Amino acid sequence: MKEDVLDSRLGEYLLRAEPFHCDWAGRLTMGYLGNHLLNASGNHASERHFNIEHLINYSWVLSRLVVEIDHMPMQHEQFSVQTWVENVQRLFTSRNYTIIDESRQPIGHGRAIWALIDLQTRKPQDLVHFNDGQLLQYLIPEKVSPIDGPGRVKLSADAPVVYTHKVAYSDIDLNGHLNSVRYIEHLLNTFDMDFHKQYILKRFEIAYSAECYAGEMISIYKEQVGTQKYNLEVRRPDGVVAVKAQLTFIENAVANNDNT
Amino acid sequence: MKEDVLDSRLGEYLLRAEPFHCDWAGRLTMGYLGNHLLNASGNHASERHFNIEHLINYSWVLSRLVVEIDHMPMQHEQFSVQTWVENVQRLFTSRNYTIIDESRQPIGHGRAIWALIDLQTRKPQDLVHFNDGQLLQYLIPEKVSPIDGPGRVKLSADAPVVYTHKVAYSDIDLNGHLNSVRYIEHLLNTFDMDFHKQYILKRFEIAYSAECYAGEMISIYKEQVGTQKYNLEVRRPDGVVAVKAQLTFIENAVANNDNT
Repeated sequence: MKEDVLDSRLGEYLLRAEPFHCDWAGRLTMGYLGNHLLNASGNHASERHFNIEHLINYSWVLSRLVVEIDHMPMQHEQFSVQTWVENVQRLFTSRNYTIIDESRQPIGHGRAIWALIDLQTRKPQDLVHFNDGQLLQYLIPEKVSPIDGPGRVKLSADAPVVYTHKVAYSDIDLNGHLNSVRYIEHLLNTFDMDFHKQYILKRFEIAYSAECYAGEMISIYKEQVGTQKYNLEVRRPDGVVAVKAQLTFIENAVANNDNT
Repeated sequence: MKEDVLDSRLGEYLLRAEPFHCDWAGRLTMGYLGNHLLNASGNHASERHFNIEHLINYSWVLSRLVVEIDHMPMQHEQFSVQTWVENVQRLFTSRNYTIIDESRQPIGHGRAIWALIDLQTRKPQDLVHFNDGQLLQYLIPEKVSPIDGPGRVKLSADAPVVYTHKVAYSDIDLNGHLNSVRYIEHLLNTFDMDFHKQYILKRFEIAYSAECYAGEMISIYKEQVGTQKYNLEVRRPDGVVAVKAQLTFIENAVANNDNT
């Protein structure tokens, strides 16, 4: 992996699993890992002058995020997040992530799809031609992600509501919307502690399609669609789907041991 | 402040207000600031070999935390947290914090009270004599905090329940308890967004007295006790008070300007 670090198109950020970012088992939660991936995206873009502080009339909007994890960092462990742009298309760009442990082994992978919207018109921009093709110079098309990209998540009409939550101060970001990381937490909270002790999250996939606002009561619908595979939808009070997600768990091999 | 940094009894940690740790106005939230203060405590103790990884049969328990803030760090701003031990008594030790901005000006202060419990007996230890007086060598008694210590928070019998929440996966720490930082978020969520736009948190004071567990429905009682001063209690389903808190706000001078 050493040659990767010398590639200026690749960003790498050293992190540590902080105690309050870890769950009952001392594992970094997917919410906080997602937070680190989004920060890595912002830092990578800032360093290359295509983040929102450089593109002041525009905003990057996260459309989809997929994370697959083999070994989640444990409390106090250091790890790194690598990120790079794999592809730029007219309306979307795809960014990949590798999560690397202290011994430089990959322990997880991520893929995200972003759009750039004009803050006045709310219209997505043509990314291929944006700023004379600025984004194209950072592409690493040959560095493909080993994990499957996002699929289509579909729930039956009779999938039940399993969780409701009134969007509150702590949920809200600078744009006045329920923030992307909090959705991950709310989705994980639809599974009770007994479930979390028995199963470990293996793959997390989320598609953002509409915004939720403070004071709104959101409802989460959930349906099991495979062995420990679940499709979920977050809906606003007006029925609009804000987020679709698919969570895949695996059996916790040490479920019968306490605290492991 | 330069001489402080040379004092090995003092810890100082450089931080940055991350986007997903900031609220609607781009201010770091008190929950995440509290998180940073608790991390600073752990790092300071680790570096001086009296953190829990060194005291393996014991655990530090946070009893009280007070934070007063003049200017909360804004999104992307760097800031530092200084921490030191002001006092060691038989059953409690008090630790102070100064939050310092990029120009080395103090922008906030904190005070915390901790106990060290034996994990077998759950009994608090004599901190003056613990490990042949190990803790005493790090004392900076002359460096007193400029803010008032914690007071006694008392609610009327008829204070109403203003918020309920079922303790979930994302709330739970490695000990299986609702974590100290999440209480701060839930307490702030009892105030709606209109309130948060009109007022800014100036002083936050919390006393932890009992643990809450996953699946429990907690109730938060709230009473206004002064001009923008509120007393709150978090109670478990069995009626036991888990946490008492007092939050003091000031008028947001720029409340009528959008997003500031």
